Amino acid sequence: MASRPRHERAREIAGECPLLTADLATVTWLTGLVADIEWGPSPFTAPPVALIHPDGSLLVVASEDEALSVAAGVDVLAFPGFAVEDVDREREALSRALAALEGADAVSADVASLPGALAWELARSGVEVVDVGAELRRARAVKDPDELEAIRAAIAVADAGQKAARAGLSAGRSELELWAETRFALEHAAGGRIPVLADFVTGERTGEVGGLPGERAVLEGDLLLVDLVPRVGGYWADSCATVACGEATATARRAYERSRAALERALELVRPHASAAEIDEAARSEVGGEGYPHHTGHGIGTSFHEEPRIVPGTDRMLEPGMVVALEPGAYEDGVGVRLELVVVVTADGYEVLSGHDLSL
Amino acid sequence: MASRPRHERAREIAGECPLLTADLATVTWLTGLVADIEWGPSPFTAPPVALIHPDGSLLVVASEDEALSVAAGVDVLAFPGFAVEDVDREREALSRALAALEGADAVSADVASLPGALAWELARSGVEVVDVGAELRRARAVKDPDELEAIRAAIAVADAGQKAARAGLSAGRSELELWAETRFALEHAAGGRIPVLADFVTGERTGEVGGLPGERAVLEGDLLLVDLVPRVGGYWADSCATVACGEATATARRAYERSRAALERALELVRPHASAAEIDEAARSEVGGEGYPHHTGHGIGTSFHEEPRIVPGTDRMLEPGMVVALEPGAYEDGVGVRLELVVVVTADGYEVLSGHDLSL
Repeated sequence: MASRPRHERAREIAGECPLLTADLATVTWLTGLVADIEWGPSPFTAPPVALIHPDGSLLVVASEDEALSVAAGVDVLAFPGFAVEDVDREREALSRALAALEGADAVSADVASLPGALAWELARSGVEVVDVGAELRRARAVKDPDELEAIRAAIAVADAGQKAARAGLSAGRSELELWAETRFALEHAAGGRIPVLADFVTGERTGEVGGLPGERAVLEGDLLLVDLVPRVGGYWADSCATVACGEATATARRAYERSRAALERALELVRPHASAAEIDEAARSEVGGEGYPHHTGHGIGTSFHEEPRIVPGTDRMLEPGMVVALEPGAYEDGVGVRLELVVVVTADGYEVLSGHDLSL
Repeated sequence: MASRPRHERAREIAGECPLLTADLATVTWLTGLVADIEWGPSPFTAPPVALIHPDGSLLVVASEDEALSVAAGVDVLAFPGFAVEDVDREREALSRALAALEGADAVSADVASLPGALAWELARSGVEVVDVGAELRRARAVKDPDELEAIRAAIAVADAGQKAARAGLSAGRSELELWAETRFALEHAAGGRIPVLADFVTGERTGEVGGLPGERAVLEGDLLLVDLVPRVGGYWADSCATVACGEATATARRAYERSRAALERALELVRPHASAAEIDEAARSEVGGEGYPHHTGHGIGTSFHEEPRIVPGTDRMLEPGMVVALEPGAYEDGVGVRLELVVVVTADGYEVLSGHDLSL
């Protein structure tokens, strides 16, 4: 676990200036705010902006609807949400953010994330800006205890979805039918509608790493590749299994063994100070053949893919409190198998957080 | 229908300067780009930016993954999408957008929508910016023929969802179960996964206008309020019905009659040059009682709620080619009924695009 809670670490990154970010994952990380995301940008809101004052106090500019989810101890400057009247919410948000800055002549900010009008105004006013976006994203990698609890809860939901997908698989059913059952299981476990990123493909499309479910009907001997990434509260889970409908083919079994061996090889290396690049290399060489065309793993938290990325060439070392989804896969000629579980790095190794069935 | 296609109207708004927008709905409107939205911001992309040159040529800066959906005739400056390597996609997008501007010293832009880094750079370089965000949003209200076709296709999907919700309603079933069936019907009709905004509530929560489905089990005599807003391709549909489980109560029937009368009163007024405020006032007074705490209607297109808004005090007049969802509702003491259908304004009145059952 981190020696200091995330708010203190963020303030340290900011230095003596106010800190500004509108990166939604960082805003959630700092303030607890959970935004509706499933239907894209809404005309009834504007992007929330989080601000940390040099004295450590936390503030968020958000619509009155989204402000309801903000954690205790965070000040809110709310602008109108759902309303009958026409409201220029971008302008309302801008004026509140500027007021919160109290005329500061220098800020630390995740510049790319800022709403255009706010970035424009800061630049035009000659405010000095130090870009700390990358540092903030890196800081999110180590989880506080309350974040670990939130991730465990999200993983329990993912586990329920994996169980339903496996149970529902039979020849003649369509991907979309299975997907509807799986999604119901996820939402039932969560107690309500939740955002879900997923790969949900059968047959030859498993060889293409992933994709969205379609009308294809499952055939006997097919694989179902099911990668479920639900958000529960503000935190994401991640999980993948690959399941055979009936008897798996010899090709599928070989791909499964390669993925399984790569996952186990990666797990053996997970501990504090382990090199993310070495874990990636070990898993990648274990998969063999053409390998797999994606990362071996990544962090999860208030975003579904964050540091530490387990990829070639990274200089990242693992630290206690990091949460890592490991997901080696083996893909060839219309057959793909990927296995994924989530671990938290502990003082001397790791603890597996995922509880789903990884068998073929 | 509009006398000139949307690209020409947008260019006219821009005047002699390049036009810049990153409002996702306006980007889709201009370029056809359809972004993944269901799982919020992705680390594998950065916001797409559309640009119209004064000569009328259209260009979009987008990730190579999202660029696949761009319409013919639109130039693409693509930056890396899904990748194993670490890529600073905001920076890649920024440099491409600046290159596309070719050193222009003045631009017309939807300033609030711009990525922070782009707004910052323009301001710091002393580029003159005229904010045309509101004008662009207003221009989207009148649809081109290809947009009408896209909206019809989305409405057919919404109709399928409404049919499933009505067919599935029976005592003892949970909102989430009914929702799963309804969503399956929507996705089956669309042939794949699609984003859906929805109100899906039963019993007393119908009196609160809307909300997400939960674990509540339906009781005999309950109402189900089902407002389905799916996006198909880049275009949104909208639709609402309120259905009784078994025999409707007297209160529910009264609320239904008031909503129905308000909807019919609103429809009687829909024609070119009709005042949106007068339509709102007519429907609002027909609902009577405490009325309803939201708009009477709104446009749909590449966003799910846009101009023309049918609200008090607006100076908006209807024009041929506008697509309007009318949705009066009557809410009281734990009972709410809302009815919604979509029309397109024609040369001398309107055509109903919705095909779902509006009965109680």
